[in-house]
Amino acid sequence: MPVMILSGGLDSSTLLWYLCSQGKPVHALTFNYGQRHSREIEHAKKVVEAARKEGFDVSHEVVDISSISHLISSGALTGEEEVPHGFYTDERQKITVVPNRNMIMLSIAAGYAVKLGEKEIYYAAHKSDYAIYPDCRKEFVKALDAAIYLATLFTPVELKAPFVDMTKVEVVSLGLKLGVPYELTWSCYEGGERPCLKCGTCLERTEAFLLNNAKDPLLSDEEWEKAVEEYRKYENSEKLSQ
Amino acid sequence: MPVMILSGGLDSSTLLWYLCSQGKPVHALTFNYGQRHSREIEHAKKVVEAARKEGFDVSHEVVDISSISHLISSGALTGEEEVPHGFYTDERQKITVVPNRNMIMLSIAAGYAVKLGEKEIYYAAHKSDYAIYPDCRKEFVKALDAAIYLATLFTPVELKAPFVDMTKVEVVSLGLKLGVPYELTWSCYEGGERPCLKCGTCLERTEAFLLNNAKDPLLSDEEWEKAVEEYRKYENSEKLSQ
Repeated sequence: MPVMILSGGLDSSTLLWYLCSQGKPVHALTFNYGQRHSREIEHAKKVVEAARKEGFDVSHEVVDISSISHLISSGALTGEEEVPHGFYTDERQKITVVPNRNMIMLSIAAGYAVKLGEKEIYYAAHKSDYAIYPDCRKEFVKALDAAIYLATLFTPVELKAPFVDMTKVEVVSLGLKLGVPYELTWSCYEGGERPCLKCGTCLERTEAFLLNNAKDPLLSDEEWEKAVEEYRKYENSEKLSQ
Repeated sequence: MPVMILSGGLDSSTLLWYLCSQGKPVHALTFNYGQRHSREIEHAKKVVEAARKEGFDVSHEVVDISSISHLISSGALTGEEEVPHGFYTDERQKITVVPNRNMIMLSIAAGYAVKLGEKEIYYAAHKSDYAIYPDCRKEFVKALDAAIYLATLFTPVELKAPFVDMTKVEVVSLGLKLGVPYELTWSCYEGGERPCLKCGTCLERTEAFLLNNAKDPLLSDEEWEKAVEEYRKYENSEKLSQ
């Protein structure tokens, strides 16, 4: 019964379905680290509800670590800086990095796994994040897996990232086959009532559906048209996420 | 200007003096993870005050992560179980382990270092804890150092544990030379007004001073006599900490 990190976005929701579809009961942890897109957390709850309706065995806990946000907030995700528009370039991206966020969440997940007597923790790192999030890279996954194993040596826990060699487009392709309720997921970093369709995360989301010849089921037809239009603006002018 | 974990006990207080004595200004983080020996935290503050009086440049922050304590508390340090008496045997010790505590604290310290633009984080792991705390072992330090370096690749942070090849007796020997104000430190896990002198941590503390031919300056003469008496009870009958 693995422990996994569920953000409420595309990737981790796909991971939840991926694990549950294999008949595994799952302990999902969603972290509140003071992110301004706290809407994500509400969506994580909706995804879990949908999984339970599907008959999947999922426990879910929202873990509040916002007390450390002032120590690690350095940019747009938790601070006051503006979320940049356009596909992620190095400069644009860096301010959306919360330093060491994944290791912090995975360390807590590993401690929780020890307490529960579980042997595996999962997160949804994938290849499209390679360039700008070092803590989504395979070399990081392997190093942290070793560190977690050594830290929990008496009741060893292993770290798994089954999507680490897949692009975001491939993750969504898998999720569409598995029937992930993507209409319940949330990606936008802006924190608005509706997705801004312009930030890097929105553009990547649009791309993931578009290249799968699908419409983003979170969006109205009108919103989807606008999303595609925004995507086309950047498509030729800037580095894509893959 | 390194970031370090300061618990308020012997080892990390020695580490603070060790770094400051080299002329390094230090950012010290003390974690409240719901430990019942929260007295430790007050002692960390006193140690920092003393360091500043010494002219050392120390910033200090108490980081409250007690919101995760229910996820990781499995024993005597945060829960309701009784703290065992006597030197640590495997069974006695295991209930004082908070699973993955060090990795959780170091992950946050690494994120904080990135935010500050600092390059090193320190903790006071030492050899005497080898047998029962896997996250104080050198192999763990090396694995976590690699993971932290990879996670923070754009502004890399390194993990240092300068006492990892030293016993607790050797750490205190160094601290006595450096003039660490051990009278301000706290070790007992019992959470009482005065040290219980019987728990594993108290016995190890007594041993560390006794084998340095020193008296524990935290204790009155009468308490020290009692501490030595308690230590003698176990000295021959049980595994020592080294």
